[in-house]
Amino acid sequence: MSSAAAARPEAIRQHNLALVLGEVHRDGSLSRAELTARLGLSRSTIGALVADLTELGLVEELVPTGGARAGRPSHVVSPHPRGPYAIAVDVDIAHVTTAAVGLGGAVLGRHVLDSGPRPSSPAAVTRLVVDSIPVLREMVSGGEPVGIAVSVPGTVDRRTGTVGFAPNLEWRNEPFGALLQSAAGSLPVDVGNDADLAVLAEHSRGAGRDCADVVYVIGRVGVGAGIIVNDRPLLGHDGHAGEIGHNVMDPAGPECHCGKRGCLETYIGDNALLALAGMPTPATEDRMRAVFAAARAGEAPALPAVRRIAESLGRGLAELVNVLNPERVILGGTLSEVFAVARAEVLTAVDRYAMDAPGQTVQLCQPAFGVDSALMGAAEVAFKRLLEAPLSWRAPRAG
Amino acid sequence: MSSAAAARPEAIRQHNLALVLGEVHRDGSLSRAELTARLGLSRSTIGALVADLTELGLVEELVPTGGARAGRPSHVVSPHPRGPYAIAVDVDIAHVTTAAVGLGGAVLGRHVLDSGPRPSSPAAVTRLVVDSIPVLREMVSGGEPVGIAVSVPGTVDRRTGTVGFAPNLEWRNEPFGALLQSAAGSLPVDVGNDADLAVLAEHSRGAGRDCADVVYVIGRVGVGAGIIVNDRPLLGHDGHAGEIGHNVMDPAGPECHCGKRGCLETYIGDNALLALAGMPTPATEDRMRAVFAAARAGEAPALPAVRRIAESLGRGLAELVNVLNPERVILGGTLSEVFAVARAEVLTAVDRYAMDAPGQTVQLCQPAFGVDSALMGAAEVAFKRLLEAPLSWRAPRAG
Repeated sequence: MSSAAAARPEAIRQHNLALVLGEVHRDGSLSRAELTARLGLSRSTIGALVADLTELGLVEELVPTGGARAGRPSHVVSPHPRGPYAIAVDVDIAHVTTAAVGLGGAVLGRHVLDSGPRPSSPAAVTRLVVDSIPVLREMVSGGEPVGIAVSVPGTVDRRTGTVGFAPNLEWRNEPFGALLQSAAGSLPVDVGNDADLAVLAEHSRGAGRDCADVVYVIGRVGVGAGIIVNDRPLLGHDGHAGEIGHNVMDPAGPECHCGKRGCLETYIGDNALLALAGMPTPATEDRMRAVFAAARAGEAPALPAVRRIAESLGRGLAELVNVLNPERVILGGTLSEVFAVARAEVLTAVDRYAMDAPGQTVQLCQPAFGVDSALMGAAEVAFKRLLEAPLSWRAPRAG
Repeated sequence: MSSAAAARPEAIRQHNLALVLGEVHRDGSLSRAELTARLGLSRSTIGALVADLTELGLVEELVPTGGARAGRPSHVVSPHPRGPYAIAVDVDIAHVTTAAVGLGGAVLGRHVLDSGPRPSSPAAVTRLVVDSIPVLREMVSGGEPVGIAVSVPGTVDRRTGTVGFAPNLEWRNEPFGALLQSAAGSLPVDVGNDADLAVLAEHSRGAGRDCADVVYVIGRVGVGAGIIVNDRPLLGHDGHAGEIGHNVMDPAGPECHCGKRGCLETYIGDNALLALAGMPTPATEDRMRAVFAAARAGEAPALPAVRRIAESLGRGLAELVNVLNPERVILGGTLSEVFAVARAEVLTAVDRYAMDAPGQTVQLCQPAFGVDSALMGAAEVAFKRLLEAPLSWRAPRAG
């Protein structure tokens, strides 16, 4: 229930069902006793709500084989194994990954498609996604998809799903959301920025769990941030928040493809690292693997190059820390490797450039979902409507 | 009602009373018909809620003298003229301003104290505030104070009210909140950062009204930002968000008192403007008035100096715009004057340094409350508990 809406009796059941389903989704499985304690509702109310969710085909209850312990064991409430699933898609330069993700975050099936040597067009990605739907359906043990949500490495208009600029895909002002929606029939379609989706997943059940204020900084060729504030996504007025890659670190710095000089991504993007390490550009997966392998082996110039990137990363993070005072910053993409190899350099630069108070308390870490954060975040978005209004499940399909 | 709490019947009345009181507080006065339309509740429910709020002494109802129009005129619901008031305090280098602010935002009384030639100590400010309480009581026509909230130009720990660093006041790690609380007896005390409070007031009923994502950038000697995201304050994990003044614009830039070089405030703070205009520093109110008067008169070097500040301001704003994608940015303090004198330079620099999408949509403007934004925001904070739980009013005083 939105805090702007007046509370009316018919909304309360929906609200309480959403609370119970949200807890089960977040944790995968929970005992009735745990639900009762977390939500402050009576055991009988929890029982009735779980019965409603079971009836809707969203959860199932299991009685643990109690063994020798005294007392009646509490029923365990889990996502229904043939319940709804999200079709989550991660589009990057080399691959399109589609996955069927169940409530609770279980990956029920995964399908990785090589998108060929050139960046995929929106039409090609749409075709790959639509073709994968029956493939994923084969992999799951029943249930129906709730919707499709796609992670794109670029700016996305939150209202239209139009991709403003995705440099690695060479997309500019592509109405990708509308295109995919027209191909997807009645399945709802959402499109999101990779960092925005990654932070959603990490906040929900990953490295940012229980942090109200958390940032996910993703670095590949470009650099972006996904931001959660007060436990809610900071998307900005048009969905373009977190575009930190073109903030200017030094007006006398290297030329950037955007026309300015000294943008953050000219310091910490993948091509900057390869250039510092004396390796050929543009960045590919193989070249990035090679530079980090050399750095981990202590080789010059790879290791000093990573350390130099780490210092610039720390300064970039410090500016975000000054603005946002997050509890935790999660470093994703190749920046996760930079942090693993040159943690001390990152921390020293944060300490040097951040204001005392936010700099001393911020925690830096790697993502819990590795390279899957954005994919898992896409699943979160696809589930959003169902999680907010469990009673609506099935209703659209009755007609 | 928090969205994490299960909806229970006894919470609904409180929730609905809070909604009605919130609307009346935001608008000052509203007809019953308008309340019915906004909240989607029945006329009889609105009538009962207004009766409850009247009984609590929080609102009063007036029947408009209908004139010749047909039909029964809708009752107008207004804050009660002898209802509770907030004691709002704005501490700056030269003055301590205290005001009694009623529900609806009416300033019922104001008391400005000269704090002398040297910055006030926390103990001196505490004394000034406590001494002003009976003075304000004389100015209002009845009613009781709900609490004291103080705006401070510095970093404030949101939990303790301790001021981390307020350079203009020369305060560092001062437990000002605890000190004032011990002097204020049973009145609740809150302490907030000036920019955080300013954006609260502007968002509630000023230049950021109806913007879910709005930033207030205040520039005086230092520079800071107050940020609203998704209609809620972005304070950060410890309350230190918005500390943009020491983000580095150019690592080869001027030395800053913080030990780094090229911090934003060395480019756009009051002392930077005076230095560019060939005037003596440090900044005082008289000197700042003089430099802006000269700039408005088209005089060199004041006008070129303001234009140069405006360009740096635009670049600083662009970085915030890239991170936050706000709908609107309100320029306060002396930056409001910079914007008035050199609007084109600010806009051109935002356009040059911001990403296309957020840069093209962001609106820049001056504060609706002039120099009073932080004072009015302090009143908002003092009213927060009452606005969230109107039924609690009077209850603490019954014992």
